[in-house]
Amino acid sequence: MGLNTRIEAAIADAVAIGQGAGRATPPRLASALHYATAPGGARIRPTILMSVAMACGDDRPEVSDAAASALELIHCASLVHDDLPCFDDADVRRGKASVHRAYSEPLAVLTGDSLIVLAFEILARQSSLAPDRVAQLIMTLAQRTGMPGGICAGQGWESEGEVDLKAYHQAKTGALFIAATQMGAIAAGQEAEPWFELGDRIGEAFQVADDLRDALYDADTLGKPAGQDDLHGRPNAVTELGVQGAISRLKDILGGAIASIPSCRGEAQLAEMVRMYAERLTPVVANTTVPGE
Amino acid sequence: MGLNTRIEAAIADAVAIGQGAGRATPPRLASALHYATAPGGARIRPTILMSVAMACGDDRPEVSDAAASALELIHCASLVHDDLPCFDDADVRRGKASVHRAYSEPLAVLTGDSLIVLAFEILARQSSLAPDRVAQLIMTLAQRTGMPGGICAGQGWESEGEVDLKAYHQAKTGALFIAATQMGAIAAGQEAEPWFELGDRIGEAFQVADDLRDALYDADTLGKPAGQDDLHGRPNAVTELGVQGAISRLKDILGGAIASIPSCRGEAQLAEMVRMYAERLTPVVANTTVPGE
Repeated sequence: MGLNTRIEAAIADAVAIGQGAGRATPPRLASALHYATAPGGARIRPTILMSVAMACGDDRPEVSDAAASALELIHCASLVHDDLPCFDDADVRRGKASVHRAYSEPLAVLTGDSLIVLAFEILARQSSLAPDRVAQLIMTLAQRTGMPGGICAGQGWESEGEVDLKAYHQAKTGALFIAATQMGAIAAGQEAEPWFELGDRIGEAFQVADDLRDALYDADTLGKPAGQDDLHGRPNAVTELGVQGAISRLKDILGGAIASIPSCRGEAQLAEMVRMYAERLTPVVANTTVPGE
Repeated sequence: MGLNTRIEAAIADAVAIGQGAGRATPPRLASALHYATAPGGARIRPTILMSVAMACGDDRPEVSDAAASALELIHCASLVHDDLPCFDDADVRRGKASVHRAYSEPLAVLTGDSLIVLAFEILARQSSLAPDRVAQLIMTLAQRTGMPGGICAGQGWESEGEVDLKAYHQAKTGALFIAATQMGAIAAGQEAEPWFELGDRIGEAFQVADDLRDALYDADTLGKPAGQDDLHGRPNAVTELGVQGAISRLKDILGGAIASIPSCRGEAQLAEMVRMYAERLTPVVANTTVPGE
């Protein structure tokens, strides 16, 4: 089974648990859980997680599957809530109507909430296989999702007059990439700490690439409204460094990311994966298709 | 230390972790986490949880504390999200402005999200003490919070044209009471299953009592807008049975609840606690103050 197929299967299995086939469940909310998670974007975070797990031996594939799907559920939940009228008020996501547009605002709030809860349930279900790893996975995912340092904190900074830019960027975009590399290592029984830097740098690169995409592409190409950062007055690498400056910054970061990969049996393959993302993330230079998020 | 003091201390410790003292965190969101959780309502769910844990021996008090505070964080999160303009559009909660009114709608969404995540983190932090119990606690809390059978599902039914009333009531109000009795048992190392009925019946009683309060009291007494069920066309025991019929139904349910308590060393005390709630829950008969939720 290819990596993409494996990830899609794990996510579909997780969503099916939330949908509770055969049980009395509210059908529109059950449908919205599927709508919000499939078809997915590039599945970058679970792909990184799984790549790290495989580089570390992947000796408990069920645990890696649970970790990858849990992380993607959290990411999808954040997109659903970020799209709400009180945040980005986005009508379109991944080329189709956003969840609150397709279903309703109440169902979009509940879809996000349910996906967050489901992520932790999916992990806890694997506890009997590897209790220590699962507990660590839940801790890591929680810390990179909530307060004080996760994506909720990142979004929270956007409601502040004075912003701690480093904390903002690390929480807003970095957090789930740090979760990706660290959870991949934990799922395969390895220490999390040495994998912090790789996730942190990929997150930083992704932020710069997102700024570039946001500055250079229109809504049709992105599958979401363009120019959002400018519109909301958020800090932006292109505004700070210009387009060429941001591209050169992106290359530096990705070089550092590759250099930071801890010694492991799949080190070379992992470096190749980062290089592949580097190409996909630098649209102006490589002129390749940019996957929608 | 009294039970109330112990519960308040556990909740305060949990919220402090989410606020991340000394770290760079968005200060308004950190403040909203506290605002949404203190001063609390009657803390009924964690009190039931802790009473069951104590009746079962409470041999891992740190685990019981984590379970009680995690459950209350989920309850508080649900209140914050339920109050949002797209749901109940409530300006007042527990006698003060609701979170979206006091802070903003984005911060209210994030407060709810952060409290949900924090609940699971608080539990996972105790994993080294009792890995099996913690994994079971996380599973139970997730299943009673999210989809397909938790309070998210309960709220989701309100977006449906056709409602499965039994599933709706059990998910909307019953779920966190079932979580309370079962998590209390699990925290003390006991089987969860025999404790289902007690939680289910308390939840049912609470729903009927809430219908009574909603029909009989005004907004000042409740600390929240009255007549909400009628306004939103939700099913209601008073509408079905009349006031006296609903009161008699409430007494039957609570009698059944006491009869359902599994044999354990603290059985008599637990029955006493249910009797105490019975008095507080039947305002018309007992003429006592009804605690705000």
